[in-house]
Parts: sequence; structure tokens; C-alpha cells
Amino acid sequence: MALEIGLLVFPRVQQLDLTGPYEVFASLPETNVHLVARNLAPITSATGLVLTPTITFSDCPALDVLCVPGGVGVNAQMEDAETLDFVRRQAAGVRYLTSVCTGALVLGAAGLLTGRRATTHWAAHDLLAAFGAVPVEGRVVRDGNLVTGGGVTAGIDFALTLAAELTDPATAQAIQLQHEYAPAPPFDAGHPETADPAVTAVARKRLAASRAEREAIVARIASKQDRSD
Amino acid sequence: MALEIGLLVFPRVQQLDLTGPYEVFASLPETNVHLVARNLAPITSATGLVLTPTITFSDCPALDVLCVPGGVGVNAQMEDAETLDFVRRQAAGVRYLTSVCTGALVLGAAGLLTGRRATTHWAAHDLLAAFGAVPVEGRVVRDGNLVTGGGVTAGIDFALTLAAELTDPATAQAIQLQHEYAPAPPFDAGHPETADPAVTAVARKRLAASRAEREAIVARIASKQDRSD
Repeated sequence: MALEIGLLVFPRVQQLDLTGPYEVFASLPETNVHLVARNLAPITSATGLVLTPTITFSDCPALDVLCVPGGVGVNAQMEDAETLDFVRRQAAGVRYLTSVCTGALVLGAAGLLTGRRATTHWAAHDLLAAFGAVPVEGRVVRDGNLVTGGGVTAGIDFALTLAAELTDPATAQAIQLQHEYAPAPPFDAGHPETADPAVTAVARKRLAASRAEREAIVARIASKQDRSD
Repeated sequence: MALEIGLLVFPRVQQLDLTGPYEVFASLPETNVHLVARNLAPITSATGLVLTPTITFSDCPALDVLCVPGGVGVNAQMEDAETLDFVRRQAAGVRYLTSVCTGALVLGAAGLLTGRRATTHWAAHDLLAAFGAVPVEGRVVRDGNLVTGGGVTAGIDFALTLAAELTDPATAQAIQLQHEYAPAPPFDAGHPETADPAVTAVARKRLAASRAEREAIVARIASKQDRSD
């Protein structure tokens, strides 16, 4: 039986959250990788690249892995009933429930993070607690069958980690080698802990509008969630 | 005046060669990023993801940066007259002529690497010499206005390096931070120098068919190139 891996795709998704893991998953043996959306109309990502879904929510098979990428578009997805229904329905049967970047907020909005250790993009990390999650710093955080990746490029580390679990370490390593993933960033600025504070200020300013909108949405959803059980 | 950056897109392109740099370039201020192809029909990448070109060869403005990604599809592009004409025409006027992964072979086929230091995917590195290039090991190799990146994920290091040149280091660092690019691969298997030899053998086997076809094409083109001047 082929592995069925589904990546959620939606307007203003951060395309690299999706395309990084896609390249790893699509290199696994006997694996079908789906871009799942409400319908098959092409979708414009946060930075303009157009992605074309391959299957609809209703036609999507039972997935072994559901992966929710992040991006500005997460704000709308957190309150989209059809998307949340799809995520909950698949989550009930998957081997691995996963996210990259702020895709974790969609899992949180779906009520799937209660009491579970998770990570997300550094600029949204503190928002996880509102969904009852236990925020953990890390490129890849595992809690049972929940595997969450940090911001954007953490999706590659996440996907290789998961690839090793889905197959074996040697297979994941061959994929890493094919993709020549021996990273050498020109700067040590990938996380607020190492970036120049002035650079972090610029990045926070760029993200401020989406962050403000997101805080309001998260508060609205969290106030309605019943985590008493 | 906005920066004009064009990424070549063609059937069986390795999508992450393109989508990694895309995300960096599209985050630059006042920048238009184009996916350039013969026509606007959607294109299936090497691993199945569909990419949609945004502009045709004939409509493409004079570019500041031309970037040629790699992938299995490079084999056909190396002998595609229309593609090579476009690349040569743009190369004559760009500020930076660039490639990621085996995209360098397209530049070589276009006769643009003669006497120039360049890199490419580890599994194709030795082929650069046939085009009169000086093969150099490295994630990002610079020779005048020629900037070449190594295999697949090297495109992210390449794009951040170029972003710093096109703007300034602080701007590139803010983009790195937004994309949380503080990589932590789960294995140290990203290059044959560090990968287990058995893993390298598996990766080479996977690439063998394309490599054999590629060798024949490179030899055919190189035999016709006149590098006497």
C-alpha cells in the first residue's frame, strides 16, 4: 500500500512551508503526495507563487500524514469551518498529524493541540498556549503522533525527520544527499536568539499587521474552545 | 525602478531549486519575481508539483537577475534552442547571471561558463569542465557577475547571499529571520564527503539514468562549442 501524504494548500500559504517538505515526501518510495484544497482552482501563495491543488477535501483518501503549512493565510483558515472539519476528520485516522510554521495554529484552532507539546514560527510561538498546547522551542517537536516544525525552512528538517520514521534513516539520508542539504547560511540570523536586535526589529515590523490580526483571531477562537474534558 | 528577477521554469524542473530562491527574492523590497517560460501553460516539475509561469520569453522584461534552476528536465533544456536563445539574450544585459543546482549546465550549454568559476549539484560537478568552466566546490560560487549555487537546497544559501548584494546584509538577514533559516538537519548526510558510502551509493543509483543521458548530451554539445576565442 502506498503512503498517502496530504499537504493542505490555501490562499496566502507560505509556499516554502509546503514546497520544502513536498520535495522530501515526493522522494519517498511508494508515496502519493497530495495538495489538498476545497476545490482544484489554482491558489496564490503569500509571496505570489501559484500552487495547483491535486485533490479536493471530499475526494482526499484517508491520509497517513496530514501536514498543515503556515503563512499569512492561516489567519483565515483558523476560522474556516470547512477546512477545520477536513483537518479534524483526517486527524482522527492519520499515523502522523503534522504542521510546519504557523500551520500549527490551524491545528490549534481545530482543537487538536490541547495538552500537547508543539512548536511554530518564532513570531507566533507564544500564541500556542491559547489553544492549550505546551509551547516547546525546537526545529522539530514530537509529541506522540503529533510532529510540528518551526518556521518556514524548518519544514525541511521536519520532513527529513518524518521521512526517517516513515521509512528508515538510510532512506531519509539518501533524500538529504540528493537534495544536497548541507546548509551553510551566509549569516547567523535565522532566529531572534542569534540575529542582530535591529534585524529582529525589522522582521517584527514586517510581521506586525498579520500578527495583530492573528492575536485577535486566536483570542476569539480560544474563548469558545471547551478544554474541560 | 523595481528589481526584475527571472527564474526559468521548464518541464521536470526540481521545484525546490526554484521555490527556495523564489521565497527569498519575493521578500526583497521593490522586486518583481517572474517565472519565465516559453508559454504560460502550467508545468509539471520533476516530483510532480505543478508550477505556473508568469511571463513568456518574449514578454519578459530585461532582467537584473536571471536564475536557472536544475532538475532532470535540464537534460532537454540544454539542447532547446529557444531556451538557450532566451538565456543568452538576457545574459548579455543582466547584473547577475545565476543558477542553482544543475541549472549551471544550461548556462554551460549556452556557452556562458567558458573560463568561469562555477558550481553545481555534487553528482554533476565533473560535467562543468566539458563547457570550459572551472569547477569549484562550494554552496555558492562567485565569479564576476556569475553566481552559481550547489544542489537543490543550496539555492537558499545562494539566494540570501545574492539578496545581500542586491540590497544590504541587514535586509538579507531580516529575510533569513522571517524564514527562520537556522537549519538543523537531522543527519549529516547532505554531501558525499559526510554521508555514509552506502547512502551515497543509493543516491547515485537513483540518479544514474538521468546522469547517463546527461553525459551523452553534454559531450554532444561540448564537441560543437567553439571556445577558441
